[in-house]
Amino acid sequence: MTDNLKSSSSRSANPKWAIKNGSFAVLRPEQPVLYGWMVIEGDRITYIGEEEPQLEEGVQVVDGTHLFFMPGLINTHGHTAMSLLRGYGDDMVLQEWLQEKMWPMEAKFTSSDVYWGTSLSVLEMLKGGTTTFLDMYDHMDQVGKVVTESGMRAALTRGVIGLCPEDVQRHKLNEAIQFAKDWHGQADGRITAMISPHAPYTCPPDFIEKFVQAAHDLDLPMHTHMSETKAEVEQNVRDYGTRPAIHLEKLGMFSRPTILAHAVHLTDEEIDILAKHHVTVSHNPGSNLKLASGVARVTDMMQAGITVSLGTDSAASNNNLDMFEEMRLAALIHKGVSGDPTAVPAAEALRMGTIYGAQSLFLKGVGALEAGMKADFIAVNTDQAHFLPRTDFISHVIYSASAKDVEHVWVDGKQVVKHGSCLTLDEERIRREAQAAFEGLLSR
Amino acid sequence: MTDNLKSSSSRSANPKWAIKNGSFAVLRPEQPVLYGWMVIEGDRITYIGEEEPQLEEGVQVVDGTHLFFMPGLINTHGHTAMSLLRGYGDDMVLQEWLQEKMWPMEAKFTSSDVYWGTSLSVLEMLKGGTTTFLDMYDHMDQVGKVVTESGMRAALTRGVIGLCPEDVQRHKLNEAIQFAKDWHGQADGRITAMISPHAPYTCPPDFIEKFVQAAHDLDLPMHTHMSETKAEVEQNVRDYGTRPAIHLEKLGMFSRPTILAHAVHLTDEEIDILAKHHVTVSHNPGSNLKLASGVARVTDMMQAGITVSLGTDSAASNNNLDMFEEMRLAALIHKGVSGDPTAVPAAEALRMGTIYGAQSLFLKGVGALEAGMKADFIAVNTDQAHFLPRTDFISHVIYSASAKDVEHVWVDGKQVVKHGSCLTLDEERIRREAQAAFEGLLSR
Repeated sequence: MTDNLKSSSSRSANPKWAIKNGSFAVLRPEQPVLYGWMVIEGDRITYIGEEEPQLEEGVQVVDGTHLFFMPGLINTHGHTAMSLLRGYGDDMVLQEWLQEKMWPMEAKFTSSDVYWGTSLSVLEMLKGGTTTFLDMYDHMDQVGKVVTESGMRAALTRGVIGLCPEDVQRHKLNEAIQFAKDWHGQADGRITAMISPHAPYTCPPDFIEKFVQAAHDLDLPMHTHMSETKAEVEQNVRDYGTRPAIHLEKLGMFSRPTILAHAVHLTDEEIDILAKHHVTVSHNPGSNLKLASGVARVTDMMQAGITVSLGTDSAASNNNLDMFEEMRLAALIHKGVSGDPTAVPAAEALRMGTIYGAQSLFLKGVGALEAGMKADFIAVNTDQAHFLPRTDFISHVIYSASAKDVEHVWVDGKQVVKHGSCLTLDEERIRREAQAAFEGLLSR
Repeated sequence: MTDNLKSSSSRSANPKWAIKNGSFAVLRPEQPVLYGWMVIEGDRITYIGEEEPQLEEGVQVVDGTHLFFMPGLINTHGHTAMSLLRGYGDDMVLQEWLQEKMWPMEAKFTSSDVYWGTSLSVLEMLKGGTTTFLDMYDHMDQVGKVVTESGMRAALTRGVIGLCPEDVQRHKLNEAIQFAKDWHGQADGRITAMISPHAPYTCPPDFIEKFVQAAHDLDLPMHTHMSETKAEVEQNVRDYGTRPAIHLEKLGMFSRPTILAHAVHLTDEEIDILAKHHVTVSHNPGSNLKLASGVARVTDMMQAGITVSLGTDSAASNNNLDMFEEMRLAALIHKGVSGDPTAVPAAEALRMGTIYGAQSLFLKGVGALEAGMKADFIAVNTDQAHFLPRTDFISHVIYSASAKDVEHVWVDGKQVVKHGSCLTLDEERIRREAQAAFEGLLSR
């Protein structure tokens, strides 16, 4: 039975189905793109190859002509609820932006605000081809709820700022631990948890050590912001006599699997430390440029063997959650700034947005189009002017595409976006409620 | 009579019509966005304001709710036919890319290839909200033809490389002059012509002087590439004992209105020279990053009073023609590289993509939403997750939008894109013919 993908019904109910005539980003060094077939059974890819597979009678086969299939994109750093503050303050000096705009509004965030802000972000991400995201924020139960409803995959973590009295610290730490206990493995295993002190400059050393202990006890990875700005590195040296990577190593953090956000300002010694401990990095080029934080040493980190993935950071500092844009920025700025046009080639940028993302989050079986992997994948519409001529789809995806070229999205084998519309969330309601939530924040 | 813009028929036949409930990017320093009304009569905007205008009986009024109206985007440097080589060579060292990939293919370009390559670009640009473009290439009659058919506005110029015998030089110069004579003012005045020696490193000084003379004779502006790479600046110093801006000033070029493409590597003295002569600059951030040419001194140029606009360069080095992306790159990279988060704020980036573009091309009455200006404008669909909350539409357009958010486009008062579809060009045929043209180039 052959069906056309453009008119077929949702795949969610099908235990086994196949795509023919597809172009697939397998991203193998010797063969980045494969033309042929992919078979999906339940939540897994079970076959991908040029040759037609032997299929039982009744297996639905859909035609993938004019679609480019890629692993779902993986956004490894963000604060999704902050989409409620998109465009609320731009082009400002960092401290003024934080003190006058972000923090006063964030202090007013309720559970409901987090629910609708996260819903707005998840809607944008899913429609834009992101199938997994990391979220570090507060009211994380709400985020867990949105992830469950949306069908998306996520690494969730309560980010804790420790500049507060000891009893408040203890309360926040317990909250972070409880969240991790409650939610790790939820939503059919699509949710994993992490343990996150917010940053070395917002958490005293002994407080960070408690997070490290909790991560050991729960056997979970850790996440934190590190060395986003020059100023915070200088402060770390003033306060603790050493640079942040050395500081965190001393506190035992890197004895756990750890993903660092930003890591813009690193010495060679720090790069070696991160590489030695297999610490991974979420590079956030859009946010780093917009906040004028600087340009991370991405090619140096990758040459040292560090797994570097991509994150949008929040929509308050980006200001969208378009991972195509982050991949393109990663491919462009490191060429422009280094003077080397071969830096971060297109296929490597796509790996940063997919398989390196999964590795960064310590997720197994996610992030690639390969037999045995989770069926988290997306289809991009190539029947458009900016995808022509059909020279190199990976080049087109990195240098020419945007989130809005995404036509279909599957997570865990279930279709969640079809012809650009989200099947799992009520788009119109989310838009309305998110706007109302912002107006509520303004008026309170 | 009130109509809904989402269901109304083409505006092209209406001598007078109005938009109500619109948000308009008027980009005034004291009021960047105006909410209210705009009236269009023929090819002109005749009213824009908060107050309801007095309209005669029978004037059609359309509802602009959920649309953000902006001046059409102006792409001030490109080689549109080269879209046929999109993705044909990426992530390569410049000279290898040119010698092994671009030049051998371009040498095979026929008039027909230029026609279909330009059609592909014009289709992409129009659908993405670009209403005016500069094109410097060969077989320019074909480009003139596409511009005429498409309804777009363009500054067209035969770019001449002078590394050839004198009789060939003379032939090419005559061709450039003839093209300018034939096409300046064509397509109801939508086409203007320029005179273009390709670059100081590809044209001997006496040859450049002949172009200057021709520009004087025809009373036309000039266009050239200048100081895109460090290597060409060093070569200029070796060959002519001085840097390119000083060299071109000596050759009399700046006695004409001149727009320079790239201008990446400039000294303070060169910036002063450009400012003194009111030379304008087309900043091409995407191309400059991808080819690792460097980061232009945009904020320094603008502080010196130079009009800086934006260009995509060709899709072979970009690789799309999305002016939203160029505006965003301009807003982002100069923050990130300078360390100043207030550099190139959103409204200024939008001016670079619109009014400064018109000024760069020495076009009068184009590039702004203002009574008396040409009705070249676009409508962006704001009823989407990444345009929420409704905090600041200019921020959203610069930091969050892409070409694919453009819903409607008008040039010279005529609607050319409606609900994302081009009304003037045969999209499907262009896609098919462009692919065939590329395959033809490969096989010849």
